[in-house]
Amino acid sequence: MTNTDWLSTPVATLDETARRAAEQRQTQLTKPPGALGRLETLAIRLAAMQGTPRPTLERVHIAVFAADHGVAAEGVSAFPQAVTAEMVRNFARGGAAISVLARQLGATLEVINLGTVVDTGPLAGVLDIKLGPGTANFAQTAAMTSEQLACALNVGRETAQRAQQSGAHLFVGGEMGIGNTTSAAALACALLDAPPELLAGPGTGLDAHGVSHKAKVIRAALTLHRVPGLDDSHRAGFPPPRVNPTRWESARGGDSIEILRRLGGFEIAALAGSYVACAQLGLPVLIDGFIATAAALVATRICPGSDQWFVYAHASAEPGHACLLEALKAQPLLDLGLRLGEGSGAAVTVPLLRLACALHNEMATFAEAGVSGKSI
Amino acid sequence: MTNTDWLSTPVATLDETARRAAEQRQTQLTKPPGALGRLETLAIRLAAMQGTPRPTLERVHIAVFAADHGVAAEGVSAFPQAVTAEMVRNFARGGAAISVLARQLGATLEVINLGTVVDTGPLAGVLDIKLGPGTANFAQTAAMTSEQLACALNVGRETAQRAQQSGAHLFVGGEMGIGNTTSAAALACALLDAPPELLAGPGTGLDAHGVSHKAKVIRAALTLHRVPGLDDSHRAGFPPPRVNPTRWESARGGDSIEILRRLGGFEIAALAGSYVACAQLGLPVLIDGFIATAAALVATRICPGSDQWFVYAHASAEPGHACLLEALKAQPLLDLGLRLGEGSGAAVTVPLLRLACALHNEMATFAEAGVSGKSI
Repeated sequence: MTNTDWLSTPVATLDETARRAAEQRQTQLTKPPGALGRLETLAIRLAAMQGTPRPTLERVHIAVFAADHGVAAEGVSAFPQAVTAEMVRNFARGGAAISVLARQLGATLEVINLGTVVDTGPLAGVLDIKLGPGTANFAQTAAMTSEQLACALNVGRETAQRAQQSGAHLFVGGEMGIGNTTSAAALACALLDAPPELLAGPGTGLDAHGVSHKAKVIRAALTLHRVPGLDDSHRAGFPPPRVNPTRWESARGGDSIEILRRLGGFEIAALAGSYVACAQLGLPVLIDGFIATAAALVATRICPGSDQWFVYAHASAEPGHACLLEALKAQPLLDLGLRLGEGSGAAVTVPLLRLACALHNEMATFAEAGVSGKSI
Repeated sequence: MTNTDWLSTPVATLDETARRAAEQRQTQLTKPPGALGRLETLAIRLAAMQGTPRPTLERVHIAVFAADHGVAAEGVSAFPQAVTAEMVRNFARGGAAISVLARQLGATLEVINLGTVVDTGPLAGVLDIKLGPGTANFAQTAAMTSEQLACALNVGRETAQRAQQSGAHLFVGGEMGIGNTTSAAALACALLDAPPELLAGPGTGLDAHGVSHKAKVIRAALTLHRVPGLDDSHRAGFPPPRVNPTRWESARGGDSIEILRRLGGFEIAALAGSYVACAQLGLPVLIDGFIATAAALVATRICPGSDQWFVYAHASAEPGHACLLEALKAQPLLDLGLRLGEGSGAAVTVPLLRLACALHNEMATFAEAGVSGKSI
């Protein structure tokens, strides 16, 4: 259970023949070249991922990982910690946003409880893998033991494997955990050498004072754990620092795993593990918002090239998301001011990907339709 | 057939009671307040439009208006004029982008041919209402006679009426017509007092030389027809002028109708007529890209307040679209570099609106789910 050697397995290779065939097909469809914009490039990328000139996204697997965070004791969330377990029940009963979206999409929804402070008891449709009553408070100590971290990563991998075995065409990872924007922000600071003031945001609804307190908690934790993220240049009136690309390129996987252990959460580690495993299995991943993108950053650090298998769904309203997206050179598809998590922003984006595939597969070519090409 | 007195009928009134009930419901759903961003405001707007706290978009009516443009003789399009009729056949046979999208959405697709240069002959699923073999060349004379314009506006109205009678919850208007970005750009210049260089773009794929020629054709036509749009200030090295808000606010409906007759197209007039009629009937409209937005601008000029019933789907890759959206204070939902027309960008946006409604209607409230509210 605690062997994580699989993390160093290389990611699956994209199918360049399928990509070229899809590119070629796009030029023949009855529309001006390029007129479907990003829907064209999406279809072509999915073709390369799926190894077929005609990609499809019929079966979508959504896995929501839930867990509590010790750092919630520092008063970094607008909601009480009991909400994590309450929302797990809400997922199971079908009342949460992701439950509604999964139904609408005809997607499989799995909920995995990795450790909430309040015990939910057995719930239909919820996989209970308790690694502890939430993480330890990373403002005081490492969030996880090595054993807990390895278990969380492996749960993520097993989830990706279940998705693939069930024939999923697309994997969506979601999360629920009061306090987890604080953990994600701390991870991002440490991995990107960026200051907490750039990454800490309102989360579920902190006011300016709350955001400032959250940044201070993160700053103190970064000092405690002797990790980067303390660049102070912006405090002297300079514009906020950009992500340091040199450090970003040069960081090593081992450091990232230790940073994840110290500052992460069970659900964030499981997300990162599922993303790495999807990339190794060759299963396309649709990345949700701030926390999922922090997990995607961890995944690319642990297993370089993972992000070839990632499609970024949306730009979150959580301000630190822009910094993460920039570091990952990611261009999300939507920008609708969403900041809910649970995988909801990714789920909302699924119909766009499906329509991109349908257009690619079903439109007539100029030859089939007897339509004239460009004249000038 | 040619009486257009209906254009001065006021638009339907939004239901403020339903709006408030929907706003109230949003605050009770199991998520942080505002966490679903624009999906929340969309659901609330749709509630006010549909007069119910629980809006729905099950039945979507897509009408694509096709017609040719005399101004194509000036060499303003990358594709030959025969493509308009060829694409009408492609719509009917199900091979065009909008055909694929309508199938995927389970939407009704109507195609209305208002006059192509090449006769398609009778086609199943195409309503043939020939107002002429395309418009006249507006670089030389008025594009339409008063009779043609009135007919086109009335065809739009009748289309909106058919949509409403069939129980549609949402109207999408699309267009097809080689040369119609030139017509739409000329209309926008005249209505917004903006220079052609700001509104003329590549359309289906002109190069820089072609775009420059297109702007010159429009500039000459604006002079010929003695309409605004000749502000030259940006040519002296200043930044491109913004839309003149004073003129925009003060323009009158009668002027707009004459501008539409001189510079418009059959399909653009039909779109404008359908939008006005939808607003009068209280049927929500999802506005597509550059040409549809030019028609929406005409509609708001002819019948003030129409735009209360409009939702703007996407920001087109056609550069002049930004100027139109600014004038209409419109914030489109998507920005995916689409520039195909046919109503395709609006159709791609329909699932987002449907998911906004599903989330609004189906999510559990805090009370129903036993989830705690904010603690701070």
